[in-house]
Amino acid sequence: MLEKLKQEVYDANMRLPELKLVTFTWGNVSGIDRNKGLFVIKPSGVEYSNLKPSDMVVINLDGKVVEGNMNPSSDTPTHTVLYNAFPKIGGIVHTHSPWAVAFAAAKLDIPALSTTHADTFYGNIPASDPLTKEEIENSYEESTGKVIVRTFKNRKIDYESVPAVLVSQHGPFAWGETPGKAVYNAKVLEAVAEIDYHALQLTRDNINVPQYLLDKHYYRKHGDKAYYGQESAMSNIHAIHE
Amino acid sequence: MLEKLKQEVYDANMRLPELKLVTFTWGNVSGIDRNKGLFVIKPSGVEYSNLKPSDMVVINLDGKVVEGNMNPSSDTPTHTVLYNAFPKIGGIVHTHSPWAVAFAAAKLDIPALSTTHADTFYGNIPASDPLTKEEIENSYEESTGKVIVRTFKNRKIDYESVPAVLVSQHGPFAWGETPGKAVYNAKVLEAVAEIDYHALQLTRDNINVPQYLLDKHYYRKHGDKAYYGQESAMSNIHAIHE
Amino acid sequence: MLEKLKQEVYDANMRLPELKLVTFTWGNVSGIDRNKGLFVIKPSGVEYSNLKPSDMVVINLDGKVVEGNMNPSSDTPTHTVLYNAFPKIGGIVHTHSPWAVAFAAAKLDIPALSTTHADTFYGNIPASDPLTKEEIENSYEESTGKVIVRTFKNRKIDYESVPAVLVSQHGPFAWGETPGKAVYNAKVLEAVAEIDYHALQLTRDNINVPQYLLDKHYYRKHGDKAYYGQESAMSNIHAIHE
Amino acid sequence: MLEKLKQEVYDANMRLPELKLVTFTWGNVSGIDRNKGLFVIKPSGVEYSNLKPSDMVVINLDGKVVEGNMNPSSDTPTHTVLYNAFPKIGGIVHTHSPWAVAFAAAKLDIPALSTTHADTFYGNIPASDPLTKEEIENSYEESTGKVIVRTFKNRKIDYESVPAVLVSQHGPFAWGETPGKAVYNAKVLEAVAEIDYHALQLTRDNINVPQYLLDKHYYRKHGDKAYYGQESAMSNIHAIHE
Repeated sequence: MLEKLKQEVYDANMRLPELKLVTFTWGNVSGIDRNKGLFVIKPSGVEYSNLKPSDMVVINLDGKVVEGNMNPSSDTPTHTVLYNAFPKIGGIVHTHSPWAVAFAAAKLDIPALSTTHADTFYGNIPASDPLTKEEIENSYEESTGKVIVRTFKNRKIDYESVPAVLVSQHGPFAWGETPGKAVYNAKVLEAVAEIDYHALQLTRDNINVPQYLLDKHYYRKHGDKAYYGQESAMSNIHAIHE
Repeated sequence: MLEKLKQEVYDANMRLPELKLVTFTWGNVSGIDRNKGLFVIKPSGVEYSNLKPSDMVVINLDGKVVEGNMNPSSDTPTHTVLYNAFPKIGGIVHTHSPWAVAFAAAKLDIPALSTTHADTFYGNIPASDPLTKEEIENSYEESTGKVIVRTFKNRKIDYESVPAVLVSQHGPFAWGETPGKAVYNAKVLEAVAEIDYHALQLTRDNINVPQYLLDKHYYRKHGDKAYYGQESAMSNIHAIHE
Repeated sequence: MLEKLKQEVYDANMRLPELKLVTFTWGNVSGIDRNKGLFVIKPSGVEYSNLKPSDMVVINLDGKVVEGNMNPSSDTPTHTVLYNAFPKIGGIVHTHSPWAVAFAAAKLDIPALSTTHADTFYGNIPASDPLTKEEIENSYEESTGKVIVRTFKNRKIDYESVPAVLVSQHGPFAWGETPGKAVYNAKVLEAVAEIDYHALQLTRDNINVPQYLLDKHYYRKHGDKAYYGQESAMSNIHAIHE
Repeated sequence: MLEKLKQEVYDANMRLPELKLVTFTWGNVSGIDRNKGLFVIKPSGVEYSNLKPSDMVVINLDGKVVEGNMNPSSDTPTHTVLYNAFPKIGGIVHTHSPWAVAFAAAKLDIPALSTTHADTFYGNIPASDPLTKEEIENSYEESTGKVIVRTFKNRKIDYESVPAVLVSQHGPFAWGETPGKAVYNAKVLEAVAEIDYHALQLTRDNINVPQYLLDKHYYRKHGDKAYYGQESAMSNIHAIHE
């Protein structure tokens, strides 16, 4: 069942240690088959070196296990909420990558300070509100998804052009058209968090990039007029590496 | 004698360079057989690349060498005090991992600022009082153990739910149900020290996590109601990797 | 066509991941044959692991593709401007190396604070003015080249003795007598950005090196009186590694 | 001639990239035969991957080349001054390791803030006075050695118990009983520079360790009463790794 998607999700999970985005098992990737309304996700707490494609667990859009011998990631309800709320995404990744978690712990957006950011994120990567006591105590992982969705709605951020969030006090979630693209976005997020941290220590000036630079760099790589890469706008949809 | 435990302690010691927790020989792991009242520990000042399971030295709970051709770690008296004071621990590790030592040098707790911390440590990782002149000059390594125990007692911290300490001006000790789990905790400590350092530079707000988030994340992985991993509460006791 | 130069440019591109100067495909190197008035450059958005010498694209000094099946780097117009304006350079490199980008995001020069800097850069590595709205919207990549040239002209900086720049809000470009030397200079730039960041956090004193130290270290390695290396002044022209 | 010493110096040089203490060729190690009054040193500007034991250049205590086909390190006059002034050292190393250079650029001592420091350095690692214009313009490398010696004399620092210095605006020199021990000391210096940088950002309190902690940790590893390692005081003289 969904063997090809399981392989794709497995491959994307294995990219996390390669890209130095995880310590131990602190990360998970899922990918969805929109036609079937099913997604597959890494099992909970299994070491990357022991993981196999067949370990991936199949989940429906109500968050129920449809196939699999292992417990799915404990973050499965968060993925379920996001797949329901963000209909155009094909993959989701969660990590505890250290630069991103530092911003999440500080409850601060990762601001758009350079073209490295603008190439992938069309504006600040938002830090969510912290979850309330009630949200944490009741259906915590589902609440996490809901807080993410609420953050994008309240701040009028487009989830397609800003494909990541920091859950305050917790860490980053990123998504994309495919599981591989979600992992790519998670790595860009970590790279810009590192850059921004240092830039913010170097100066107290307002160094946010202007809107016209965001426009230029984002649309150089995305949309109809993209001209980066080998296949115009299509290339950044299919390639794990931009 | 204790061949299986020696292998386990050897394996845990060899994880230290793999996890980038040690430079040169600056670290040691021990593990205890509670039934026999004996623990085994790395010899002093031996390179990791030259270490063999049979080099491990066997010590009793009075701190005396029972078996072994090499000098045990110079920190052996610290381990002895901790095994006597903390009856439920099965392994202890000491490192000079750099982010943790920075907090130890600054004599500051590693505060609970994110879920990465709360997943393993149920509250701040305390910085001990600095040792006094008398404590340093008389039975230094034993005094180090006593200062750790005193810190937990005076601050009413439970050694099982906060399985690590920073000895001020020195560095971290961590422990756990097994030698492998102690090493796991030492790595988490280093990871959260890195995250916290950067978060504390990003903001001057109070960013300590609330008690209900500590409760949620800690008990998601520990105790009767744990639901992370593949075997409910048992999984995090046996696995070196959570 | 230009097979030897293609190999040289390919080799220099492959040094970028080795020297940890790029994430994903975020970098490009070109090299010029001054006699033929043609340069070769990496194709756009191709992973380093898939790159072959024959993928290199040949461009003339009007910026037109002369040979090659792939789209050239989207930064090709920037390279074209620089080859026209800086007649003595033989290679150009662009990266998003993180320490350099932090200074670029902060719109700050990398100041000359140590001999590590002075050995390669005879003074501050300038941060350009940010591009204006018009420059970004019209012929962006060409404008990037023009802003670099204008920065060197307005600030009376010699492009041969300061072979790099930070494009504000974007990142570093470096150049040299050969593609390999350009990559060398890009690595030195990243190394001194890291050193300078930390030095600037350690003190608020003016720690710029005096002119006589710049003179000594720069001319110890460059020009007629150089005495570093194995072949007097020639060695630093031919060697990729100084 | 001096084949065994050449091998030893070659091995110590090759440790520099292994220990991540050098970028490109920015480092050199020498070792002396005190009976013969000759030292051997790395040639100038040769890549580590191309280096052979037979490339090492033999120098006498007047700083003249006695044997060797290649130019010796341009820092040879600095080594010569140090071997003459510090009669008990057997090896010297110079690097541009980044944490140490950050302190050198800031013209700040690396303060004694933790036992990691005290285990190897019995007090602050001093930053020298910057060289004067005259010292830089006349016999620069020899002046560098003289400034180091003057720093130790003026500040009454014992070169045996504080086996390293930061040359202000330049970088670290370290030394030891053997070339291998000098490299060990250079790595400890880099490790404590990293720790100290972060500790100094975490607090503005005075966090220098007290004299009695310096005494305890330093003499635990050095001198007649040392008890760290496998052979009492001898072990730390012969071992490259403590």
